[in-house]
Amino acid sequence: MFEIRTDLAVEEKEGFQGNGGEISGVSLREWRKASSSIKMTEVKILDEAGERAMGKPRGTYLTMEAKQMGREDEGYHREVSKELASQLRRMIKGLRKRHALPAGDPLHVLVVGLGNPSVTPDALGPGVLGNLRVNRNLRAASSLPPDDGEPVIISGIIPGVMAQTGMETAEIVGGILYETAPDMIIAIDALAARSIRRLGTTIQLTDTGIQPGSGVGNHRHSLTEAGLGIPVLAIGVPTVVGAAAIVHDTVSALIGTLWSHMETKGMGDYMDELPPDEQYQLISELLEPEFGQLYVTPPDIDQTVKRLGYTISEGIHLAFYENPQDEEEYGI
Amino acid sequence: MFEIRTDLAVEEKEGFQGNGGEISGVSLREWRKASSSIKMTEVKILDEAGERAMGKPRGTYLTMEAKQMGREDEGYHREVSKELASQLRRMIKGLRKRHALPAGDPLHVLVVGLGNPSVTPDALGPGVLGNLRVNRNLRAASSLPPDDGEPVIISGIIPGVMAQTGMETAEIVGGILYETAPDMIIAIDALAARSIRRLGTTIQLTDTGIQPGSGVGNHRHSLTEAGLGIPVLAIGVPTVVGAAAIVHDTVSALIGTLWSHMETKGMGDYMDELPPDEQYQLISELLEPEFGQLYVTPPDIDQTVKRLGYTISEGIHLAFYENPQDEEEYGI
Amino acid sequence: MFEIRTDLAVEEKEGFQGNGGEISGVSLREWRKASSSIKMTEVKILDEAGERAMGKPRGTYLTMEAKQMGREDEGYHREVSKELASQLRRMIKGLRKRHALPAGDPLHVLVVGLGNPSVTPDALGPGVLGNLRVNRNLRAASSLPPDDGEPVIISGIIPGVMAQTGMETAEIVGGILYETAPDMIIAIDALAARSIRRLGTTIQLTDTGIQPGSGVGNHRHSLTEAGLGIPVLAIGVPTVVGAAAIVHDTVSALIGTLWSHMETKGMGDYMDELPPDEQYQLISELLEPEFGQLYVTPPDIDQTVKRLGYTISEGIHLAFYENPQDEEEYGI
Amino acid sequence: MFEIRTDLAVEEKEGFQGNGGEISGVSLREWRKASSSIKMTEVKILDEAGERAMGKPRGTYLTMEAKQMGREDEGYHREVSKELASQLRRMIKGLRKRHALPAGDPLHVLVVGLGNPSVTPDALGPGVLGNLRVNRNLRAASSLPPDDGEPVIISGIIPGVMAQTGMETAEIVGGILYETAPDMIIAIDALAARSIRRLGTTIQLTDTGIQPGSGVGNHRHSLTEAGLGIPVLAIGVPTVVGAAAIVHDTVSALIGTLWSHMETKGMGDYMDELPPDEQYQLISELLEPEFGQLYVTPPDIDQTVKRLGYTISEGIHLAFYENPQDEEEYGI
Repeated sequence: MFEIRTDLAVEEKEGFQGNGGEISGVSLREWRKASSSIKMTEVKILDEAGERAMGKPRGTYLTMEAKQMGREDEGYHREVSKELASQLRRMIKGLRKRHALPAGDPLHVLVVGLGNPSVTPDALGPGVLGNLRVNRNLRAASSLPPDDGEPVIISGIIPGVMAQTGMETAEIVGGILYETAPDMIIAIDALAARSIRRLGTTIQLTDTGIQPGSGVGNHRHSLTEAGLGIPVLAIGVPTVVGAAAIVHDTVSALIGTLWSHMETKGMGDYMDELPPDEQYQLISELLEPEFGQLYVTPPDIDQTVKRLGYTISEGIHLAFYENPQDEEEYGI
Repeated sequence: MFEIRTDLAVEEKEGFQGNGGEISGVSLREWRKASSSIKMTEVKILDEAGERAMGKPRGTYLTMEAKQMGREDEGYHREVSKELASQLRRMIKGLRKRHALPAGDPLHVLVVGLGNPSVTPDALGPGVLGNLRVNRNLRAASSLPPDDGEPVIISGIIPGVMAQTGMETAEIVGGILYETAPDMIIAIDALAARSIRRLGTTIQLTDTGIQPGSGVGNHRHSLTEAGLGIPVLAIGVPTVVGAAAIVHDTVSALIGTLWSHMETKGMGDYMDELPPDEQYQLISELLEPEFGQLYVTPPDIDQTVKRLGYTISEGIHLAFYENPQDEEEYGI
Repeated sequence: MFEIRTDLAVEEKEGFQGNGGEISGVSLREWRKASSSIKMTEVKILDEAGERAMGKPRGTYLTMEAKQMGREDEGYHREVSKELASQLRRMIKGLRKRHALPAGDPLHVLVVGLGNPSVTPDALGPGVLGNLRVNRNLRAASSLPPDDGEPVIISGIIPGVMAQTGMETAEIVGGILYETAPDMIIAIDALAARSIRRLGTTIQLTDTGIQPGSGVGNHRHSLTEAGLGIPVLAIGVPTVVGAAAIVHDTVSALIGTLWSHMETKGMGDYMDELPPDEQYQLISELLEPEFGQLYVTPPDIDQTVKRLGYTISEGIHLAFYENPQDEEEYGI
Repeated sequence: MFEIRTDLAVEEKEGFQGNGGEISGVSLREWRKASSSIKMTEVKILDEAGERAMGKPRGTYLTMEAKQMGREDEGYHREVSKELASQLRRMIKGLRKRHALPAGDPLHVLVVGLGNPSVTPDALGPGVLGNLRVNRNLRAASSLPPDDGEPVIISGIIPGVMAQTGMETAEIVGGILYETAPDMIIAIDALAARSIRRLGTTIQLTDTGIQPGSGVGNHRHSLTEAGLGIPVLAIGVPTVVGAAAIVHDTVSALIGTLWSHMETKGMGDYMDELPPDEQYQLISELLEPEFGQLYVTPPDIDQTVKRLGYTISEGIHLAFYENPQDEEEYGI
C-alpha cells in the first residue's frame, strides 16, 4: 500500500497544521544555543493519543539541524560532535536513573551499525562503526566516566542486512545480548525523510530505538526495549526520501494549482467535491506499486555519509571517553 | 531547467507515438534469437533530422534486454556476456573498416570505467574495470584475435569524478590518449533511464560515445570521437531514473485521470484549455529545482551493479581474448 | 615465545621425516583424479598420539592443491568449485550420520566469514560471504537437496575482528546459534602456511573447526564443536607465512651450509656440539619478539583473495543449491 | 638479485658506521621542537659522491618520526599535520624560488595517490586522495595563500597500478600534465623500510620525487622532475619491510653469534676466512628468489594506513587552504 513515510518525528509533527499545530499527547520544544548555528528541536510523545497521532512510540525525539551539516568544515563538525555528545550523556543519565542501574558499576554499551555497507545512502551505520573505538577487548573499563564517574565499556557490531545474512537484525543483536549482556544499545541507522531539504542536514537522537520498517530500503530492522529488554538509543541521519513522498508532494501542489486555476474560471466547485480522502485515493492509484521500494537520493550522498559517519563516531567518543570539562554543555 | 532525461535511445524512440512510431531519420529493428530470452533492439539515427528528433547524435544504439538480467543466475549471465561479446566484435569490425585500420596491426583498446566508485548506482564503470584483465603491460599482444586474426592490446583506467579529481574526465582520458595512443575507447557508464522497469534489465551498446550530461548525477563526462579523435564505443546499464521523470509520469497520469473524471461531470472543456505546452509548463513549475539533482534507485542496486559489472567484463574478455568458435554468433 | 606455525595439517605432516614419514595416530592418503590438475591429500588424525604429534585436534584435514589456483582461468576455477562441492557434500553426509540428524529435516547451515575485511590477506572470509547466496530469509527451504534429498537452509555472518567489535568471534557466533539454532557451521578463514609456495595454491577443508590462535594476525578465533555444540566445518586458504617461519628456514639452511663448509675444512666436530634443541634456542634468541606479530605476503594477494573467494562461494552454491548429476563425483 | 632495499634516506644513512657516520656529499641535521614529541631529521644529498654512497638522487629528505604516529590520538595527529604543513610550505617556497615561478600567479598542484587501493599496506596514496579536497573544478583559485600570498589550485588523481591499468604510472600522470599543465606534483606513496620499527612511525617528505622500483610491491612507479619536467614532492610512510631484509638481519646476527661462540672455543679463525663479500654471497644463496617479491607487514596495518592517510590529507589542507597564523612554525 501507498505510504508517505518519515523516520523523523519532527517532520511528522510538522504535518499537523490545524489547532495551532498542537497535538494532544505531544510536546515540542525548540531552542538554539547562543553563538551556535545548530537548531535543536525536542519532540516528546507522552501518551497513547500522541502515539496514535504521530504513528511513533512514546519517548523523546531530539533533532539537531544545520544546513552545513553535510559540508566540509572541520570546526563545524566538531561543534556538532560536541553537541551530540552532550545530548547523549544527558539521555544516558536519564536512562540510568529510570533503569536504576547501580552507580559505580561500569556501563556496557553495545553500538550497532545498521544498514547495508554496499549501498551508499544506507551505509551510515557501518561507516560509524568503521571509525568507532571499542574497548571491551582491552579487558579494562579504564575510560573516563560518561557523566557520573562510572566507567564505560564499549563494544560494536555491524550486523549486515537480511538479504546478505538470511537473518533478522534483531536475531543477530539478540544473540549478542545473550552472550555479552550489555546494559544499553546505541543503534546507528540511515533514515528516510519526508523532505529532500532534510537530507544530510539533520541528526535525530531518540530513546525509542529502531522501529520495524524504518530506515533506507524498508529493512525489517527492529531494535526496541520491548523486544530486547534493554534500553535502545538510536542515532539517525536522513539520507533518502521515499519516491512516493516526492510524487505525493508534487501532486498535492498540482491539485492546489488546478483548483485555484479553476476557481478563477468559475469551476472551483469541482475540487470541493474531491475531499482529502478521495484525493489521497486518487494519488494512491497513480503511484506505481514499485515506488514503495524506490528511494530518492542526491548524487553526492557519499560525502554526506562519510562526513556524518565521522561526526557521529566522534560524538560517541566524546560522550564516553572524554571528561566533560564544561558542565554548562548539559544545560539546555 | 526541467528536463526528462533518458540515456537510452530505445526509450527516446518509444516516446514518439504519432505517425505509427515512425521518425524521419531514425530506423528501428527488433529481434530475438531462437531459444534466447534476450530481446535485441537496434535504433539507428541516420541524419540530422533524426538527431534533432531524438536529441542524440547519429550512430547505432543497440539494446539488449531481459528481465532476469540483474538476477542471480550464472548460466543466464554467460548468455548475456556471449551476446555482448558478439555484438562488440561486430561493431569493432565495422569501426575497423570505417577507420581503415590496417589489417594485421594489433588493435589497442583503452577501456574507461566512468563513474564514482563510492556511490553505488554510479559504480558500474569502476566495477567492470575491477574485473577487467588488461594485457598492455605484458608487452606482448599475444591474445587471440578479435575477429579478423589481429591481436589486441587492452589497457584500462578508472578516471574518477570531477568532485574528487578537480579535472574533467575528458582531460584525464585525453592525456592518456596523448601518451599511449590507443586505436579505440570502450567507455562503461551507469545510465539514467526514463522508466524504472529498465533499471538493471537493459544493456545499451553504442558507437556514439558518451555525451556530456549523461550518466548518473549529471557528470560532465564527454567522450566522443569528435572530441578525442578516435572511435568511442560505450556500454551502459540504467541504474537510476531522474526524480523529475517519476514525478512527471505521475502528474501526466493525474491530469489524464482528472480530465476523464471531469468529463463525466460535464467539465471536460476545461482540460481542452490546457494544451501540452501549458501542461508541461505547469508541471515544470511544480517540480522543485533540486529535483534535477536527485535520482531514484532501488535498494538492491548493489547486487545489480555487482552482477552486471561482472557480466560486462566477461563480455569484453570473450570479445577480445577468446576465439569465436561459432561463426553464427555474428549473424543477426 | 617463538613459534613456527602452520594452519595446514599437510605441512605439519611434511615436517616429520624420520620413520618413513609415518606418525602413530595419523593416516595419510593422496590421490589425483584422472584428467584433473588438482592434487588431493587427506590427513586423518586418529587418536591422542596423533594429536600430540601434529599439534592439532583429531579429525579429517582434506587439502586440494594446484599451482594455478590463484590465477585467472574461469574453467579452472569451475573445476575447483566442483571438487570442493563434492568434498563438502561427502563430509556433511558423514556428519549427518554421526550426529544422527533426522533424514528429511531441512539442514540449517550457518556460514561464518572470519577475518578483517580491511586487511587484504585476512579478507577471504568476508569475501566469500560477499558472494554467498543465503536463503533463510526466503522462509522456504526450497533449494535442491544436498545429497540425500533433504532441503537446506543457508544463513551467513561476517562477525568482524575483536579490535573492531570488542568481542570474541565465538561470543558473536555463539549468540547467533542461541537465537537461530543452525545444525552446522561452515567457517571460512585465511590461513597461515609454513611455506610461501602454498600461498594461494591450496584449499584446506576440515571437520575440526577453527582453533584458537589460527588464521592471519593470530586472531583469537575459536569455533569448535566442543565450544559451540554443533559440528564446524572449516574451509581455509593460506594467504600469509609468519615472518618467523621464513627466517627460521633461512637460518636452518645457513647452519647446514656452514656445517658442510666447516666439515670440508676439518672442523665438522663443532656443529656436533650444537644439537637441535640448542639450534632452536639460538634461532629463537635471534628472532625479534615483534616477528611473532608480522606476516609475509605477496603484493598480488588481492587477486588471490578475490578469485578464491569467488571459487569457494561457488563451491558452497554447488554443494547446496544444485543437484549432483554425476554420482561418480563422490567417489574418490 | 638479492637486494636489501629501503625507501628512507634516514635508514640508508644509518647504514654507514665507519668514519663517525660521515659520508662525503651527504649532510645530516636532527632537531626536535620544544614541547613536541616529533623528531625531525633532514638528510641532504649534495653531490654525485653522495648519490653514489646513498643510492638515491641528490635533494632533501626530511623525516618526521614519532612512535605514536600510527596510534589513535586526535590531538597528536593534528600536531603531525601541522608540522607536515609547515614543512610542505617551506619546501614549496624553495621550489618557487628555484623555478622562478612568477609571484602572484596561482600555483597549480596535482596530488597523485600512488599504490593499489585493494592491497592494504599499499593503499596509503589512494587513502589520502579519498580525503583530499580539490578545488580546480570550482574554477576559482579562491583559497587562502600557501605562504606568499599566491592562490593555489589543487587537482588530484589515483592512477592505479600497472597490473590493473596496463600502463606505467608515469604514462598516466604524464598525459594529465600534458592536458592540465600543473606547476608541481605532490606524490603520496607507501614505502618499504629496512627496520620493522619504522612501520607507521615515520613520514618522509622529499623534493626528489618517486624513484623507479620504490614503494610496496616494487611498482615501476617513477615520477621525477627529470622525467616529467616539473618539480615532484613526495610524501611517504613505510608500511612494509622487504622479506629479504628481515632474513638478512637475522642471518647477520647469527653469523656474529656463531663467531663469538666459536672464538670462545678457539675456532675463531674460521670466520676470519669469511669476509663480508663472501658472507653477503652466502646469505644471497640462502634467500629464495621469491623473497624479492614478498613483504612483511603487521596485522593492524589497516589502522595505520587509515589514520596516516587522514593525517597527511589534513597536512595538505593546512598547507594550502589555511593561513599560517603562526610564523614561528616556519623556523627550525
